[in-house]
Formats: sequence, structure tokens, C-alpha cells
Amino acid sequence: MPSTVKALATDSAGAAYHRATIVRRDPGPDEVVIDIKYAGVCHSDIHTARGEWGRTIFPLTPGHEIAGVVSAVGPAVDRHRVGDRVGVGCFVDSCGVCQHCRLGEENACLDRAVWTYNDIGRDGLPTAGGYSQQIVVRQGYVLRLPDSIPLDRAAPLLCAGITPYAPLVRHGAGPGQQVAVIGLGGLGHMGVQLAHAMGAEVTALSRSENKRADALSLGADHYHATADPETFTNLKGRFDLIICTISNNIDVDAYVGLLRLGGKLVFIGLPPEKQAFSTRGLCDGHKTITGSNIGGIAATQQMLDFCAAHDVAPRIELITADQVDAAYQRVVAGDVRFRFVIDIASL
Amino acid sequence: MPSTVKALATDSAGAAYHRATIVRRDPGPDEVVIDIKYAGVCHSDIHTARGEWGRTIFPLTPGHEIAGVVSAVGPAVDRHRVGDRVGVGCFVDSCGVCQHCRLGEENACLDRAVWTYNDIGRDGLPTAGGYSQQIVVRQGYVLRLPDSIPLDRAAPLLCAGITPYAPLVRHGAGPGQQVAVIGLGGLGHMGVQLAHAMGAEVTALSRSENKRADALSLGADHYHATADPETFTNLKGRFDLIICTISNNIDVDAYVGLLRLGGKLVFIGLPPEKQAFSTRGLCDGHKTITGSNIGGIAATQQMLDFCAAHDVAPRIELITADQVDAAYQRVVAGDVRFRFVIDIASL
Repeated sequence: MPSTVKALATDSAGAAYHRATIVRRDPGPDEVVIDIKYAGVCHSDIHTARGEWGRTIFPLTPGHEIAGVVSAVGPAVDRHRVGDRVGVGCFVDSCGVCQHCRLGEENACLDRAVWTYNDIGRDGLPTAGGYSQQIVVRQGYVLRLPDSIPLDRAAPLLCAGITPYAPLVRHGAGPGQQVAVIGLGGLGHMGVQLAHAMGAEVTALSRSENKRADALSLGADHYHATADPETFTNLKGRFDLIICTISNNIDVDAYVGLLRLGGKLVFIGLPPEKQAFSTRGLCDGHKTITGSNIGGIAATQQMLDFCAAHDVAPRIELITADQVDAAYQRVVAGDVRFRFVIDIASL
Repeated sequence: MPSTVKALATDSAGAAYHRATIVRRDPGPDEVVIDIKYAGVCHSDIHTARGEWGRTIFPLTPGHEIAGVVSAVGPAVDRHRVGDRVGVGCFVDSCGVCQHCRLGEENACLDRAVWTYNDIGRDGLPTAGGYSQQIVVRQGYVLRLPDSIPLDRAAPLLCAGITPYAPLVRHGAGPGQQVAVIGLGGLGHMGVQLAHAMGAEVTALSRSENKRADALSLGADHYHATADPETFTNLKGRFDLIICTISNNIDVDAYVGLLRLGGKLVFIGLPPEKQAFSTRGLCDGHKTITGSNIGGIAATQQMLDFCAAHDVAPRIELITADQVDAAYQRVVAGDVRFRFVIDIASL
């Protein structure tokens, strides 16, 4: 019979979190029950909780950076065992048979991926995320967490890790490549570490000089403040790849100007408004603007294994369930180094 | 001693053309003298002659789609002989030693490419293009025209051919690929033919139904009118590659919506204003917006040889020197099938 578990919930756009209970279904034959230990706080949790992205289903229990331990499995489960350290990211299901799913891009399922929270599952019930004690997920959507990564630091990898990892791999970040990362928040501080671990020469671009020491300690070879107009003169034509992790409007043409012949500007943040570019800037030197949104299950597992092999992990601030509202305010103010993670034991 | 040759010139922005004489230098050791037979009329000639792209050097003799015959060569010339059928495209010189030149992307020379007209040559004198009887060009910037392509139809290939060819090759147009071409003017009618010859399944997208028969006769497998909103519903998620040949503002997000996972929208026309896009549209399905501007010498030669091998050539309307002003008006009105070519014998 379904379990009732503790969770954090918010009842309307921008309302404070309160302790609540939610119901988790019994595991189906191919499902895994996960006792959640830690949940990362992603900026998209905040957008959703505040109703900034349109439809939010309230009461809402967010959280798609989930790390925990398997506590039960259905009879057909063969990929995970009780006691395994596992993670769940932004989606918990997809059709599994469409062209995109077969390509390993389940997140772009042509039927539709089921998002970990603020969605309707295939059982017709609202999904609820990681700000809770337990979750039940089909085994194919559960990731193995390498032993070398502590669970609290593993949690943010499920979104803030795969999001920069996928485009870095797709676009060939590696030795001999000049990679820039715009923004040094949750995504950006992972992007710098990952690009460095892949062997690229990494430049961190942040508004002010404030994060220089952090960036260099994360593996950046260079650091430039974007508030300094000379940055855009000095770095003209420099980069093979620029990963834009910020969610504000940017001067697209200015960053396109920093690309080499054939270079690529990749958005992984979502600015609220449309962005403008001149086609001439793209045509001269056949430069590219593209985007990327998390990644499929195989890529996410590959990312986790890569992080373990290269000793890459997020830097986090561990918080209790009572501190989530305050943490949201600090995230919006850019005041977090670099990811808040909720200790679910505090629920 | 330098030659004086007949040419068409315009003396100020938008002024009518008149017959004039221009001076062509004696060929240097590695230079070729070309008796021009035909010159294509490119929309960029019009933008330049009308001062729409900023700085125009008057008097102006445009023309960067040049087909002719070698009439003299310097002593060090070993790639071309008197009597050879040759072409000249958008640029006549570059540094030859920078990284881009060494990659065969002379058009993106880091020093600077010298444009065929409306530029200052390395001799310090203004360049003048193909609306004239003769031109003198370094041999490395002169293309061989295959015998099977008539000179009048070869001329437009030097810009309208290479411009769609380069991105089609770069982005892998071929069997199994769904390629759309937006616009059916000079560039578009070449794009359709080239993509078809490469083996792709080709969809022509044009505003109205007017050009359906033309598009199908050029090799398009499908035709859709973009004025019909259903086009954007019916073709959603269809294309690997969309080549946008038009120079008007477009609804970028609507076309991005027609792309498959990982699909690419390539601008080869230059809309006058900045274009706007939503980053979300790019992130979902990691889609790409990019551009392309002509191509290097090796790619241009490859394109000419490809056209000969696959019996691809522009459809043209041959005009005399007296008809250029009227032809400009018709180009701007979209009333040309599909390229005007000036018969230089009429000068």
C-alpha cells in the first residue's frame, strides 16, 4: 500500500515552504524505491515555485537533483539493488520507444518525458520531487552514484552536472580547445571544472572581479570580468566554445564576436526574453548559436562516472529544510557558492 | 602599361549606371588577365550600389559573379593558361598565410580578404568588379570553369552557387537528410538543386504558391507556402537542416520549431535588422542557429566541379548593359527567375 512520507511543499506562487506529507505509490515490477538523503536547490525550482514559468501545479514539492539509497525494488528490477547509492535527475519516465528515446535522448521524448516534479505522471497523478523523504522511479531512469562522490555533493550533478557536460562533450571540448564559461553559479562552476577536466583551456567570464579566486581554484586558466568593455576587445575571436550559464539577457553579438571561425555559443541558461543577434555576425566565420537542455540517461551516467574518474564535484552549502526559503532568496541574489543542498534528514 | 577598359559605373547611392572606362593594372608575375564574358547580378551589388550597407566607394563598378577567358598571364603563373575558361568570385586576394587562409577559408582571412569590388586592393587602389571588360587577379583566386557549364550560366555559381553549397556540405546534406530551403531566388534556386543533387530529401519553402512548379522542376520533393500557418504545424520537427536564403526578417522561433533534434537553421541571407530567438527553443532538442558566408577557394572549385558532375547550373535571364537599372528593380521586387546575367559583349 502507498507510503505517506514527509516533504516540503509550497501552496501558491512564492508562498513559503511548509512541512507536509505526500503519498508515494508502491513500486511497480520495474520500479525502485529510493530513500532520499539529499536534494539540490536548482534555480528552476525557484522559477517554478514562484510561478515564473507559467503553469505550476500546487501544492508543489520541487527537487530534481536527488541523491539517495535504494530501499526496495520491484520483482523485475535488475539494474539496482537495495542499498545502492543512486540518483534521480530532471525526469522520471519517457515512452522508451520513440526515435529520441532510442537515441538515448529520453529528455526529448517525442511522446513526452515525465518531469520529476510539476508534471503529471503516467499514473495520472502529479509528480513530486526531491524535497521529500522518498521517491519511486522506474529503474531505467535511476542513475548509479559512484562511491567516491559523497551523496550530498552528488545530488547537484543530476542537473547542474549533466547540463554543462552534455554540450561540452557534444561540441568536442578537450585538449587544444579554448572554452569559455559565462557565469559562475551552480551550472558555471561545474562547467569550469568539467571543461578543465576534459583538457580544454578554460576561461571564466563573470560580471565582476568577485569570483576570480573561486574560478581559478575550480580550474579556470583565465578569468575576465564582463563589466570591463576591454574584455570584449581583448578576447575577440578567441573561443571554440562558449557555454552561457546565466539566465539574464546578454549581448549575443558581443559574445559571438569572441568566437573563432566555426565557434559555438551554447545557451544552457534560459533568459526570460527573446535574445537578438545579427545574422552577419554568424555568417562571417560561420559561427553558431545553440542550446542544450540536460541530457539523456546514458549521458548522465557517463557524466557521473567522468566526475568520479576526474575528482569533479560541486561545491555546496548544506542547509536544513527550514532554510529553503532563505536559500531561495540567496540564490536569486547570486549569493551561493555554489549550490544549496537540502539535508533531507532535517525534514 | 595599364589597360583602359569599358565598364558600367554608378556615381552615387542609387544613381543610374552609365558607361565608363576603368583602368586595369598590368598583370604581376602571378597574375592572370581575364576577358570577362558574363557577370551575374547579385542582390549584394544592389545593396552596395544603393549605399544600403554603409560605406560605398564611388564611382562603383560591381560584379562578383564573373565568368571569362584568360587573355594573358604573368611569368610565374602555372595554374591557368591563355584561353582557359575561368571565374572570379567575391574576393580577389587574401594574406595567404594566416590560420584561416591556411585552412582554406581565405574569405575569412584574419588580415583581410580583398573584395572583388568596393574595397581597396593591396596596391592601394579601389577594386572594381565584373560589370567590365577585363579584370586582373592573382592566380590563386581564379577558379577553373568546367567545360560542360556554359559561361553565362557559370557566372552566378561564383556567389549564388558557393553560398548554399558550403553550408550544405558543412552540415552533411545527403541521403537520409531532410533539407528545407527558404526562399526561391538566386540563392534558393541553387540551394534546392544542390541539396537534391547531394541526395537529400528537399522541401522548398516560399511565401506563396507562385513558385511551386519552379521548385519541383528544380528538384524539390515538397513545396509549402510559408504564408499558410498550417505549414508550421504540419512540418514541425521535420528538418535536419534549413537554409534561409532570404534577406527579410523572419520568425526565427517558428523555423526552429521545424527542426528535428540537433537540427540546424543556417542563414545565408542577411536580414537588415537583428533577429530574435528564444533560448528555450534552442535548448529543447539542442537546435542550432548558424550562418555562412560564401566559401574559400578550394570549396568554390569543389562546388564548380560538383555542379559539372551533377548537371547543376543556375537558371538565368541574360541582359544587356543597358538593362541593369531595370534589372535591379526587378530583383528587389523578387521578379527574376532566377538570376540576371549581364552579357559583357553589350558594353
